[in-house]
Amino acid sequence: MIYLDNNATTKVDERVLDAMMPYFKEEYANPSSMYNFSKKASNALKEARGVLKDFLNAKDEKEIIFTSCGSESANTAIKGVLNYNKSKKHIITTKVEHPCVLNLYQTLEKQGYKVDYIGVNSNGDLDLEQLEAAITPDTALVSVMWANNETGVIFPIKKISEIIKSKSPDTKFFVDAVQAAGKIPLDVQGNGIDLLGISGHKFHAPKGVGALYINSKTLITPLIVGGHQERGKRAGTENVPYIVGMSKAAELATDGLKYELTEVKRLRDKLEKNILKNIYNSRLNTGVSNRVPNTTNIGFEYVEGELILLHMSDLGICASSGSACTSGSLEPSHVLRAMNVPFTAIHGSIRFSLSRFTTEKEIDYVCEKMPEIIEKITAISPYQEELAALKAHK
Amino acid sequence: MIYLDNNATTKVDERVLDAMMPYFKEEYANPSSMYNFSKKASNALKEARGVLKDFLNAKDEKEIIFTSCGSESANTAIKGVLNYNKSKKHIITTKVEHPCVLNLYQTLEKQGYKVDYIGVNSNGDLDLEQLEAAITPDTALVSVMWANNETGVIFPIKKISEIIKSKSPDTKFFVDAVQAAGKIPLDVQGNGIDLLGISGHKFHAPKGVGALYINSKTLITPLIVGGHQERGKRAGTENVPYIVGMSKAAELATDGLKYELTEVKRLRDKLEKNILKNIYNSRLNTGVSNRVPNTTNIGFEYVEGELILLHMSDLGICASSGSACTSGSLEPSHVLRAMNVPFTAIHGSIRFSLSRFTTEKEIDYVCEKMPEIIEKITAISPYQEELAALKAHK
Repeated sequence: MIYLDNNATTKVDERVLDAMMPYFKEEYANPSSMYNFSKKASNALKEARGVLKDFLNAKDEKEIIFTSCGSESANTAIKGVLNYNKSKKHIITTKVEHPCVLNLYQTLEKQGYKVDYIGVNSNGDLDLEQLEAAITPDTALVSVMWANNETGVIFPIKKISEIIKSKSPDTKFFVDAVQAAGKIPLDVQGNGIDLLGISGHKFHAPKGVGALYINSKTLITPLIVGGHQERGKRAGTENVPYIVGMSKAAELATDGLKYELTEVKRLRDKLEKNILKNIYNSRLNTGVSNRVPNTTNIGFEYVEGELILLHMSDLGICASSGSACTSGSLEPSHVLRAMNVPFTAIHGSIRFSLSRFTTEKEIDYVCEKMPEIIEKITAISPYQEELAALKAHK
Repeated sequence: MIYLDNNATTKVDERVLDAMMPYFKEEYANPSSMYNFSKKASNALKEARGVLKDFLNAKDEKEIIFTSCGSESANTAIKGVLNYNKSKKHIITTKVEHPCVLNLYQTLEKQGYKVDYIGVNSNGDLDLEQLEAAITPDTALVSVMWANNETGVIFPIKKISEIIKSKSPDTKFFVDAVQAAGKIPLDVQGNGIDLLGISGHKFHAPKGVGALYINSKTLITPLIVGGHQERGKRAGTENVPYIVGMSKAAELATDGLKYELTEVKRLRDKLEKNILKNIYNSRLNTGVSNRVPNTTNIGFEYVEGELILLHMSDLGICASSGSACTSGSLEPSHVLRAMNVPFTAIHGSIRFSLSRFTTEKEIDYVCEKMPEIIEKITAISPYQEELAALKAHK
């Protein structure tokens, strides 16, 4: 099995699992309890918070709250800011956000919020002029992803923050960094971020844990109200094993960042170049630069993505045609539509996402098999004339 | 170490851990993905949902949604019902609910909801006449715990449901069953329940997973909006290992229910009788019947609970003076106050909560040590006159 769908979820690193085990076995105390037995659990929580603070370069560990997933982080941040100050009813986001975030904004529109969706160009880069023009003193929140889950395109977070703060200093800035964590350095202070969400299972921690950075000047209304946990910002007995696991995963991600930016990138580039060279009806759906190192999104013209994935799956190769949250839907990707990817390629676009566990042998195998798969599917495409013209042109 | 604080959290059963392991290791796929590799994860989710359906005796597995904790289950149920139908602004709950739920209602009062808090008698039993009188057609929700976390007292859920439905058929009924799961049989259909929340870590699954039953006739506005997971009622990549673990824990709880109701109860009764017999300034804070089998709440008159716990902790015995969520607070328990536990005992009240892992040897040790601890602390109490009178009277 060759797993090239690491933007959907990742394998739990064995060192993460090892770090969690004592908290499943001996150290099972509720960290809020008063007796000695709970000390190890409460200390582990405290340490993990410090690690996450460093991972995001927050100023204070009080700015880190633990959540159960990226979606919870986003819902807590977005609704938290809006509910804390209900007088402002304007939100700015992008056309290429994760479906989770877009669905939430559609819900908020029904509740009377005005939401502007900023577009991108064909490389996937954000239209900063449109963004700047949209900001008003009534803008409660600007909400932008750091790296796109489908294309890997990185948004210029620092520049966006500067634009926001120069036009409307009170507007809050939420960054969905779910796909950036572990792939590029994160620095909330250096990039002027008010709130930032990450999800453990995208960087080799388990599914079911996330974190939310809320800077000390940003106040929110909590989403999950109840006990005093997370300084009253998120109730619920803390998931000690997973929090410890995510903290270990963050340390490993920091240590592995150089490898990610060199080796993982090299393998991604090798895969990409091979496919583009050897398959005449393939095209890169983004620019070559300004992307996280593990992701490539390639369109195969005049063929169906689901069919490609099926053939890949039969050979044990896992990839995807969009986010896992929307898989099964027949709609073409909203991200690729926003980028004006031509209709000839949008239905046959595949995301390959690597990780530090991806090997050269695996990439070589995929490089060998992709031309065979695409050739087989292309042969039964109803667009033979167009394909012939495309081939002649190349 | 002797752990008698199982209402705060429980040890993960080794069989639960074993059941989770493959989903940390090999079967790490995102269950929403389309390729073959995700089949085992998505099937595991489906099976777990079936197990939870049976555990709660729901009609359909579609009525089960997985959450990250009991607090999330409660927030989803309560806000979900209220936000779905915003015209009704009246809520009924009890004075002895878990602090998580009470804090949420206090927040809702600030948002314009009227909340009636029904009282209990000195045994901890709910005032059903007061409840009945409070219900009006404007009552959106009645929210009641099944078993109390501090005292173990069981509320008559079926009778409460009948009262609600006869007075106001449209009023929704939410049951917080966090402390009932694994201790008594749960049956949502047989008890006329609309929504019911449980938390895995109270019955030997890990911290960080819960479930919410929502019957098919009850509509809610979701708390965490985003992806299509949980039929659109709870976004976020599913925590496959913990969901599998909770499902295993539910099976073990069903199998172990008889043991809970006989052996665990026998050990609880032994501990309770011994303490009440051998410590003159002790009193049972509830009636003897109508309780879950693992819990006893005992008041030690004229002494401080925190001091008792400290001495117990030094001997490696874990218990608590209230919910872990409020530990550290100096306020006496709101549950015991609602029961009119005399001020002489309320500050020195200790909850002992056993589990199927509690041994006779452990109970014998605690029976031996408690009189020594209490005697030592009683000797330095400033209430020597009152204590002498109490001793003479017994």
